Order: sequence, then structure tokens, then C-alpha cells
Amino acid sequence: MRTRAAVALEAGKPLEVMEVNLEGPKAGEVLIEIKATGICHTDEFTLSGADPEGVFPAILGHEGAGIVLEVGEGVTSVKPGDHVIPLYTPECRECASCLSGKTNMCHAIRATQGKGLMPDGTTRFSMLDGTPIYHYMGCSTFANHTVLPEISVAKVREDAPFDKICYVGCGVTTGIGAVNYTAKVELGATAVVFGLGGIGLNVLQGLRMAGADMIIGVDLNDAKREMAEHFGMTHFINPKNVENVVDEIINLTKTPLDPIGGADYSFDCTGNVNVMRQALECTHRGWGQSIVIGVAPAGAEISTRPFQLVTGRTWKGSAFGGARGRTDVPKIVDWYMDGKIEIDPMITHTLRLEDINKGFDLMHAGESIRSVVLF
Amino acid sequence: MRTRAAVALEAGKPLEVMEVNLEGPKAGEVLIEIKATGICHTDEFTLSGADPEGVFPAILGHEGAGIVLEVGEGVTSVKPGDHVIPLYTPECRECASCLSGKTNMCHAIRATQGKGLMPDGTTRFSMLDGTPIYHYMGCSTFANHTVLPEISVAKVREDAPFDKICYVGCGVTTGIGAVNYTAKVELGATAVVFGLGGIGLNVLQGLRMAGADMIIGVDLNDAKREMAEHFGMTHFINPKNVENVVDEIINLTKTPLDPIGGADYSFDCTGNVNVMRQALECTHRGWGQSIVIGVAPAGAEISTRPFQLVTGRTWKGSAFGGARGRTDVPKIVDWYMDGKIEIDPMITHTLRLEDINKGFDLMHAGESIRSVVLF
Ligand SMILES: NC(=O)c1ccc[n+]([C@@H]2O[C@H](COP(=O)([O-])OP(=O)(O)OC[C@H]3O[C@@H](n4cnc5c(N)ncnc54)[C@H](O)[C@@H]3O)[C@@H](O)[C@H]2O)c1
Ligand SMILES: NC(=O)c1ccc[n+]([C@@H]2O[C@H](COP(=O)([O-])OP(=O)(O)OC[C@H]3O[C@@H](n4cnc5c(N)ncnc54)[C@H](O)[C@@H]3O)[C@@H](O)[C@H]2O)c1
Ligand SMILES: [Zn+2]
Ligand SMILES: [Zn+2]
Ligand SMILES: [Zn+2]
Ligand SMILES: [Zn+2]
Repeated sequence: MRTRAAVALEAGKPLEVMEVNLEGPKAGEVLIEIKATGICHTDEFTLSGADPEGVFPAILGHEGAGIVLEVGEGVTSVKPGDHVIPLYTPECRECASCLSGKTNMCHAIRATQGKGLMPDGTTRFSMLDGTPIYHYMGCSTFANHTVLPEISVAKVREDAPFDKICYVGCGVTTGIGAVNYTAKVELGATAVVFGLGGIGLNVLQGLRMAGADMIIGVDLNDAKREMAEHFGMTHFINPKNVENVVDEIINLTKTPLDPIGGADYSFDCTGNVNVMRQALECTHRGWGQSIVIGVAPAGAEISTRPFQLVTGRTWKGSAFGGARGRTDVPKIVDWYMDGKIEIDPMITHTLRLEDINKGFDLMHAGESIRSVVLF
Repeated sequence: MRTRAAVALEAGKPLEVMEVNLEGPKAGEVLIEIKATGICHTDEFTLSGADPEGVFPAILGHEGAGIVLEVGEGVTSVKPGDHVIPLYTPECRECASCLSGKTNMCHAIRATQGKGLMPDGTTRFSMLDGTPIYHYMGCSTFANHTVLPEISVAKVREDAPFDKICYVGCGVTTGIGAVNYTAKVELGATAVVFGLGGIGLNVLQGLRMAGADMIIGVDLNDAKREMAEHFGMTHFINPKNVENVVDEIINLTKTPLDPIGGADYSFDCTGNVNVMRQALECTHRGWGQSIVIGVAPAGAEISTRPFQLVTGRTWKGSAFGGARGRTDVPKIVDWYMDGKIEIDPMITHTLRLEDINKGFDLMHAGESIRSVVLF
């Protein structure tokens, strides 16, 4: 079949919207009509050429929602008509990672997905002249139709609006999951969120849902404050206005009972390795946990004195919020439909596929939280 | 009263054995007759002058066992005649750290202990000319008698031999605790221990007790192999004999079910920051945990790419094995008496107080695992 897609022909160039060929689903695969897709920093990272694993031409996009049109041989978990969210972190429920019960990082199709290929080592997309077009993060949601492995498809309820729940495919789950699946924040905790962009806001609402008491937000941009307060932030620090952000947090969290101070949990949502260090060091001696969510530039390293760890701090990371795609994503959609979490205020712009490059411009200008493309 | 002690008069000089004055216990304090004390790397670290917090003259030593002779006003948890182990990590059971249930790092007397003082800001020891002598790690076990706060004293059973259980006061608990309290290693786990000295051996036997399946030991010194096997090591790697120790461990831990490879847990018992990085990076993507036990030189930093954390590895540390002194140390003594753990083969040398400097020489020469001074 043919479909319309925004194709990344080369690194550093705008996407080009065009007709492309799409082969139907092979055994174990699913053809999906994408109804909406968000534009995420990770798409931008790859499009810019900064991603050492980036391959071109490719159809980017990994934050979508749509409807199953056709299933390949042997597919049993979804059927035509089902509403689904594509997963860049699959869940095969059979590999050692899935069976460990300790991680969401299924490795069933890791090698091919990392190379922009389907599990059989080929692509389903091609240019009209036959040149193969690479898949991206196993999703390629910047296309009106796409093909995914069955294990990369989460079935969700049918009354949930595509233009909102597409965001559950990356940002919402990453932020809320980091709180609830990775850190397992408990009632009454004290937490700090560094970076109040799309990810940080979702960490904030995850913390509010978990019942954290003090929720400190840190951002260089004062304009982030209002929305952050809407999503649960109780205290704001702009590092430009204080001498030392770590000391500031430690002082803010001291109590008569606890003269030591420090946050129970912290989250880096900036991708800046210096901020990651601050995030670790502002946590509480004895039990503080710091979760790295942000993605650093290639080659950048984090560092600290090991004494920070020996005295009881834990440094962790979180990918896709530690969420198991097929198991947890449908629950997060339910939380949205039940009003336990909000998504609508974060979708600041909606665009047509033709205008997708404007979504990247809005991101660069820091004007959007999330731009969503509607098909 | 007067007692005999090995006094550190200056950094970098041998200890001097002499008579010193010791004031009796004040309110909330306990006078202990030390029967045996181990000599640990931390004593050596401070004696060498490398410890930025070191103060002199001081009575070092923090790995002792003895008998309560007298208690100050208000002391209720021990009485004269009780057998006890001094604790450099107290357990007040009242501060925010103790009450958190998340850490053993009681902070009730942290400020004064760090300065070599008793909680009231003074010392109990002095030279015969009246010059105050500082306490060390709240213990000062290189003296025939010493005074400790009640919260720094663990009461243990009376049939346990002092010359063995003194080692529970630091090394044994540090190693076994890191496995059982900090990492909480589970049955069937795969683990790597970097550095097979006194701490590493205790990590090994902790792993064996926890039921780990594959227990890999790493040391630059082949001579460490035999004893390490005695304590539970199943595989040995000398980094000198392999190209890349991280790759070696990842390959060794791959299975048909798990083509990714990596250890479930790793422990640094070297204090070398490059080794700490290897220890993190050899753990399993998705769930590997690396525990820093070794104490690095002042100012040294650990580093890694944050991707190591984002893909599911956790970096932690452990102080005194995460053990709560008054609660857990008596249990570890029971494990020894019940034959669940071994201590005897690790006490390679016993000395009289007069020969204590020989204990430091044996440590420098790498000839001892533990030298114990008997009073
Ligand atoms: N681990 C995962 O699974 C995962 C998934 C999606 C996105 N991410 C990463 O999360 C990060 C955040 O994404 P986003 O969409 O929220 O980005 P964003 O640009 O919308 O937000 C980043 C925020 O950080 C603030 N900031 C920048 N430098 C700062 C500093 N030094 N101190 C304090 N604040 C600072 C900015 O002002 C901005 O508000 C990115 O690195 C992205 O790649 C990770
Ligand atoms: N965290 C705590 O509570 C705590 C308590 C006690 C001791 N410690 C620390 O634990 C560490 C170990 O103490 P120990 O008494 O076992 O010391 P040790 O000297 O007896 O043992 C260290 C071992 O590491 C090996 N080693 C050195 N460099 C190595 C390398 N690059 N690769 C592999 N092996 C290497 C040595 O050959 C030796 O066998 C020290 O740093 C000590 O200060 C920490
Ligand atoms: Zn994303
Ligand atoms: Zn899997
Ligand atoms: Zn010690
Ligand atoms: Zn306490």
C-alpha cells in the first residue's frame, strides 16, 4: 500500500512530507493507522544528527496512537479495530529481561530495532523508487500508517482521545513511571525535579499522585513556574537566583526532627550532566535516591565523589519510566480517563502532517510543551 | 583511672604505647575493658595523614570487643559484666535517620564523633601531662579501656571469643552486611567481587550465605585465589590476564536464555575509582546493582556515561554494611557461633599491644588479612 509520511532524508534537514510504500504486516506484525503523534526531543536529537545510531532516510516519531487495520499470521493479542499505542520499549513476556520481573527493558528485538529494521532484518517502508526507508525506535509514527511487531503494541480503551493519549507513548509514561515504577516514591516523601519541560511536568504529577509532601521544581526559566505549580510543584528554585542549588535544597528540606536535610528523591529531566550531579548530591544522606531521566549529549559523563554513595545515596536511571509497555500503558490511559492525571494542558499545539516542521521550530523556541500532529 | 594505649601522636609516625589518663563514664556513657581489637585499613588511612578529618594526638582503633566495667547515669541497655562490641556507627533509635527505617547512618552524635570528641564536646582520654587525646570513630579500641556513648555499644552473647568477634566490629559486618542489608542479594544471583582482601572475603561469604549461584572474584594478586575459593568464590579473574575485565564478566554471565550478560550484583572492595566504574559497567542492563564499599583517596571521583544508569543499572554505596549496630551486630555474632559464617581463617596474626606497629607493617606488606591485638 501507499501512505503519507514525513521522511527524514538527511541529518540536519527539515522533514519532507511525501507518499511512501508500506508493505503489509508479516507474521507476528501489525498494521496500524496512526491517528495522532507527538513530537519529542528524541526525534529532534536524531534528526539533528547528534544521535550516533541515527540512520537515514528514516521515518521518525515514537509517540503515537491509532487503530489496528490488519494483523499478520499468528498475532493473537490485538485484532483489526483495536485502539493501540505503539511501544518503543516492547514487552515480549518471554525474554530473560521480561521474565526477571526487575526491568521493563525487553531485549527480544533490541538488535534489529536499534538498526532501524523490523525483527526479520528488513524494512516495511520504501521510497516510491524502491529505496528502503528505515524504521525509528520500532515505531515510525510520523506516517499515516506503520507496521510494528505485535510485542510493540499496547491495546488501550476505545473511548480515549488519540490526540491526548499519544503522549502516553513517551512523555507521560516516562515521567509518571519514573516516580511510580523506578523510584517507587511513597506517601509523604520530599522530592526535587530538575527541568520543568514536558518530562518534568509529568514527574511532578507522578509525585502528586504518589502523595509526596514537598515537591521542589528547579528550572533556569521562570516562565516554567506557573504550569509546574498547576502540576503539583510546591516550591520553585531558579538556580540563577541562589548561590548553590544543592545547599538551597538541603536547607529547604531540614526540619526540627531532621537537621541533616536533603531530598528523599530527585529526578533529572534536563539531560545536563552537571545537573545530574546536583540532583544526586541534594538527596538525603542515608537514603536519597536520584533518578536520571534526561538523555545526555553523546560522550558526556557524570561524576561525583564515591563518598556520596558510601554515605547512602543511590544513583539510578529510568527508561520509559520503568513501565512495561503492554501491561502498564493501558493503565496509564485509564488514569487519564479517570481524571487521576492530566494531559490536556500539556498539548499546547496541534498541527497537520504538512506542518510538522513547525512543531520542531516550536520546540527549539521553547514555546511548546508538546506539539501533536493529527492525521 | 589510668590505662595503657597505643597513641597516634602525629600523622605518619608509628603508634606509641604508653599510660594515659581515662575519665570515668559520664551520663549516658559506658566504660569498657577492651579484650581484643583488629587493625583496619581505615586506622592506617588516618595514621598516614591521608584522612583530611584526622586529628592528633588520638587513640585509633574501631574494631574491638570487650566487657562493660561501669555505666554512667541513665544507662539502661548494658550493665557491668556484659560483653560488647564498640560501634563506630551508633544506633540511637530516636533520630530521623534511625526512625526512617531506610538507613543505618544514625546522626545523633555525628558532629562530635567526626571531631574526635564525646557527645559533650570533650575527651575522656588525656596524656599524663593533661593534654587531651582525641577519640577515634567514637571507639578508640587501641586502648585497654575506653569510654563510649551507650548508643555506640552492641551487647553480644558471652560465649563468643573476643579475639574473633572483634572483627565483627568492622570488616565482617561491612562485607556480609553489604550483601544482605544494602544489596539484599537473592537466591540464585550472579555477583562479582572486586578486591579479595579482608572486606572482599566477607562479601564472598555473605554471597554464599545469600545463596548466590555464580560468585566471580577479581584481584590483581593471584595469591588471593585460594582463600577466596574457601570463602565461596566460584570463578576468578586476574585483570592482568584478560583484555577487558568488563567484557570478560559479561561473557562469563551470558546464558542461552540471557544473551545480554552482566552480573546481577557487583561490589567494589578496592577503593580504586577506576575499579568502581568497571564494577558498575559489568552489571546487567535493566537491573544490575553495583555497591561501592571501598574508600577512595581524598578528592578522587567516580564517573560513567549516564546511559549506564538510564539503561537500568543502579549505583549504591554501603557504610558498615548497612547494618544497624545494636540490632544487627549481635545477630552476626550469632551467625558466627552457629557456624553460618567463618571468621577464624581471616585472623591471620595475633599480637600484643606492644607490637601493634608490626600489625601495620604486615598490612603494608599484604601479608595479613587481619591482625588482632590481644590485651
Ligand atoms: N529516559 C527516557 O526514557 C526519556 C524519555 C523521553 C525524554 N527523555 C529526556 O528527558 C529530557 C527532558 O525532556 P523534555 O521534553 O522535558 O525537555 P524540555 O526541553 O521540554 O525541558 C527541559 C527543561 O530543563 C530546563 N533546564 C535546562 N538546563 C537546566 C539547568 N541547568 N538547570 C535547571 N533547568 C534546566 C529547561 O529550561 C527546560 O524547561 C531530555 O533529555 C529528553 O531527551 C528521556
Ligand atoms: N564502606 C565501609 O564501611 C568500609 C569499611 C571498612 C573498609 N572499607 C574499605 O574497603 C576497602 C577494602 O578493604 P580491605 O581491608 O579488604 O583491603 P585489602 O587491601 O585487604 O584488599 C584490597 C584488595 O584489592 C586488590 N586490588 C587492588 N587494586 C585492584 C584492582 N585494580 N583490581 C582488582 N583488585 C585490586 C588487592 O590486591 C587486595 O587484595 C578499603 O578501601 C577500605 O578502606 C570500607
Ligand atoms: Zn520521546
Ligand atoms: Zn522481552
Ligand atoms: Zn574498619
Ligand atoms: Zn539515630
